[in-house]
Amino acid sequence: MDYPEALEELVESLQQLPTIGPKSAQRLAFWLLETAEPKALRLAEAIRTARSQIRPCRRCFNYSEQELCQICSDPQRKTGVLCVVVQPKDIVALERTREYRGGYHVLGGLLSPLDGIGPDKVRIHELLQRVREESIAEVILALDTTVGGEATCLYLSRQLGTDASVTRLAQGLPAGGNLDYTDEVTLGRALRGRRRVEDLSPQ
Amino acid sequence: MDYPEALEELVESLQQLPTIGPKSAQRLAFWLLETAEPKALRLAEAIRTARSQIRPCRRCFNYSEQELCQICSDPQRKTGVLCVVVQPKDIVALERTREYRGGYHVLGGLLSPLDGIGPDKVRIHELLQRVREESIAEVILALDTTVGGEATCLYLSRQLGTDASVTRLAQGLPAGGNLDYTDEVTLGRALRGRRRVEDLSPQ
Repeated sequence: MDYPEALEELVESLQQLPTIGPKSAQRLAFWLLETAEPKALRLAEAIRTARSQIRPCRRCFNYSEQELCQICSDPQRKTGVLCVVVQPKDIVALERTREYRGGYHVLGGLLSPLDGIGPDKVRIHELLQRVREESIAEVILALDTTVGGEATCLYLSRQLGTDASVTRLAQGLPAGGNLDYTDEVTLGRALRGRRRVEDLSPQ
Repeated sequence: MDYPEALEELVESLQQLPTIGPKSAQRLAFWLLETAEPKALRLAEAIRTARSQIRPCRRCFNYSEQELCQICSDPQRKTGVLCVVVQPKDIVALERTREYRGGYHVLGGLLSPLDGIGPDKVRIHELLQRVREESIAEVILALDTTVGGEATCLYLSRQLGTDASVTRLAQGLPAGGNLDYTDEVTLGRALRGRRRVEDLSPQ
């Protein structure tokens, strides 16, 4: 027996989603068929609404329903400092720390010349313009510590060097990390980035 | 920062799905926002179509887009034998074996007096009626080997006893199973259900 066509199509469109394999897609499809109708249609509606109402913030390219996102339109946020991230969900991660009250800039990707992603494919031009126009004093690079992240940091710090002070997130041991389980690159960076204990006491 | 409302709603409606926790829901929501628009809308559309077009087969209650499902409307299927299952996806599992060519009957649930699921809450009445009207000679009970499954088997075999021959799926060692890893209930049933080797040779 084949599935009815509409069920087959539902399974296939669920299988497009990341980390959803054929088995999970089948299970989710059956759930969507068997649950109360409003629950299933709620998801269909939420997808449509999200796709039609969410757009990039005009200034920082974070997700937003207005022209300016919640952060850019918040008068309480510090001006003069920008944190550069790759994607909107990195902002969520940084906000969760409650350690930062400045603005953001979403690049949209990392430089990757081998994949044809040059400086014109990510929002570097927009960043340079913002740094000048908003008289930014510090740019914090909060990028992945991968090859692409390192390359992008290097490129950005050269481009920004004279306009603003460029900093990067510290690299070292993760919280709750065991020294003997830490890889040698991380441990090497933690050593090189070591800090005087008295400097770490709360100010 | 909170998510924009439409994104929040998308995350929440994904979180309703079974086995999708908050982290996965977030990842899927971001994918649905970032992927090409037709891919995301395809899922929304597939949910709507499935909910509006798929209904239970009038005869056996399998999923169907027509009044009769693919199996009930197939003239090549054997008549006179019915396989009783709990849900439509059990039919898919049984069809995959290619060992059975008769009809099905989807109960829709197992008896569970403690949860208030009595014989009137599952499609037992419809089954008894079919057995009489379609002059069924054999009813195969293909139910879970759980407490609820056993109770339902017992009830059904009493109800059907005089009208048709009632059989159950064999219980025993699974294919590829190791004897020393098999639990004692399964092993006990395998022992009780042992068969003469000559009876097992292909006929």
